[in-house]
Amino acid sequence: MSEGTRNLVIAGSGVAGLSAAVYAARADLDPLVLEGDEPGGQLTLTTDVENYLGFPEGVGGMDLVQRGREQAERFGAEFRHGTIESADLTGQPKLLELSTGERLRTRALVVATGASARWVGADGEDELMGYGLSTCATCDGAFHRGDDVLVVGGGDSAMEEALFLAKFADSVTVLHRREELRASEIMADRAREHDDVEFRWNTELLAVQGSQEAGVTGARLVSHPDGYPTEQREAGEDVTVEEVDIGGVFYAIGHEPNTEFLRDTPVELDGGGYVRTADGVDAWATTATATDGVFAAGDVMDREYQQAVTAAGMGSMAALDAETWLESNDPVSAEPESVPAEPGD
Amino acid sequence: MSEGTRNLVIAGSGVAGLSAAVYAARADLDPLVLEGDEPGGQLTLTTDVENYLGFPEGVGGMDLVQRGREQAERFGAEFRHGTIESADLTGQPKLLELSTGERLRTRALVVATGASARWVGADGEDELMGYGLSTCATCDGAFHRGDDVLVVGGGDSAMEEALFLAKFADSVTVLHRREELRASEIMADRAREHDDVEFRWNTELLAVQGSQEAGVTGARLVSHPDGYPTEQREAGEDVTVEEVDIGGVFYAIGHEPNTEFLRDTPVELDGGGYVRTADGVDAWATTATATDGVFAAGDVMDREYQQAVTAAGMGSMAALDAETWLESNDPVSAEPESVPAEPGD
Repeated sequence: MSEGTRNLVIAGSGVAGLSAAVYAARADLDPLVLEGDEPGGQLTLTTDVENYLGFPEGVGGMDLVQRGREQAERFGAEFRHGTIESADLTGQPKLLELSTGERLRTRALVVATGASARWVGADGEDELMGYGLSTCATCDGAFHRGDDVLVVGGGDSAMEEALFLAKFADSVTVLHRREELRASEIMADRAREHDDVEFRWNTELLAVQGSQEAGVTGARLVSHPDGYPTEQREAGEDVTVEEVDIGGVFYAIGHEPNTEFLRDTPVELDGGGYVRTADGVDAWATTATATDGVFAAGDVMDREYQQAVTAAGMGSMAALDAETWLESNDPVSAEPESVPAEPGD
Repeated sequence: MSEGTRNLVIAGSGVAGLSAAVYAARADLDPLVLEGDEPGGQLTLTTDVENYLGFPEGVGGMDLVQRGREQAERFGAEFRHGTIESADLTGQPKLLELSTGERLRTRALVVATGASARWVGADGEDELMGYGLSTCATCDGAFHRGDDVLVVGGGDSAMEEALFLAKFADSVTVLHRREELRASEIMADRAREHDDVEFRWNTELLAVQGSQEAGVTGARLVSHPDGYPTEQREAGEDVTVEEVDIGGVFYAIGHEPNTEFLRDTPVELDGGGYVRTADGVDAWATTATATDGVFAAGDVMDREYQQAVTAAGMGSMAALDAETWLESNDPVSAEPESVPAEPGD
């Protein structure tokens, strides 16, 4: 049901959305935050965040998100369940249709819906994600000094993660389901030439073993000399299954930005589905998209850094950019237009 | 004296430098942080930071900086007194000459030397800065609900600050030393048309009154009908001096990026002296400057947002960009080059 036109809706309640909410609420824009499918976002999958500035002893991912939410609520941000199912962003106000069936009208929108790391689908991953199983080497690599770890993937980011992990881990083994890497020549060479990085070709991960108390302790692998071993097994071929002792598993098979609801809008996406901002669309502000009044922040527009602190920074930029935009455009608010007064002398 | 070539020197110990230090130290780059003239940077001038995500009750500016420093030190970042007096950034390694007389060699450099808000030079400002006197309305405006406040300045940012403050303050009076604004037409009109924003033309601030306990309680102003009243007074003209009761003073007379030491280097600066990065110099990464191996983060390259959380985000980007750059360039490190190993099959 209609409830009047909002100044600002923020889609997503991860770090970017929360930081945008703190800034927008503090600027009296009364933002509404849509929590999305995964309230709190990717960070809730990380047990311990060591690199978010301000927490010398580290902070739990869930804890940081909870603190951010409290902070936003303290300034008056409103939170609501739901995701955007479809959006009409061309006119003014913008119209949003939520998964809950609700319809919203808003002058400005901050898209902070994030990107979800792809998961392998191995047994045990629900239980162990954040407990030795990770989708972010930069975040969690330093917890694995002296461990033997696995990296699943064959692209540039898998090579990067493997090289980064080799600084800490005793050994890094890259699992790849076929014999050729998708990674660029230079990244592949660099990984191949590293003493502590090994490759297991034609191999996939079946299960991650361990417990939330002990962390990851092992993995079950499947391999077939022709590659794609799980497909081979499904086709009835003989495959080799083995168990290995390892202290950590990192998934590096890509991220999927949550931009499905933008497909039919004038917001521009890049080939990977990420929202284009700023130079990509020749916009007037860092977080501005190709659509007037729509801003984006965090992993949904940042395929490069994807850190908690970068997302928080961009969230605040998006709120500031939205505020500037709202000030320059006719307000639709409960207050009457102010009558111009002659300046004193 | 020489102590070997560093991987990474970070110039500046404000939020951007500290966040870069956390990331670089955690990536085992053994960064050296040069503290600069104002260790901890601009944030140390703010008593209470309410909008840095993660602190629902707010955090003291000095406290946040101290926490960040502990965090960086915990991962092995080294801190040293001094600023860069001059730099030769063309070759490899880069050569830095410090204010302490020391010389450093480094492969990569992160410039996080910040920008300093200009101060008026009024009596009482040393004591009251951060206690009701502020250089940042976005940071401190919300503390002034119901107050009458002054804004000193006549440019766009003064208009922005005045309009922002009008959301909270009962009244906002812009002090300007002459009768014409430097601000753009649109911003000036917007401020003039606002009910709660007034102008005091041909007026300057002589003193800020109050105490650290009570905050700002008043101000002494000087005016002269021909403008530039302090100059008039110095020239022996009659001026009007008066005292006003107010609850807050905001300086908006610009920032000065700390980039003097870059004047004779190939790092590009814009007209205001800010470091150009990314699209400004067509660089490969967000924080890359026009000079190979030199990165910039925080207020020294960001004339737009200048928030603690944006600086922290950019600091982490600069460290990640520097790390990528260091990995792609020949390492000068204590370890011998690793011997390429044949990958297993």
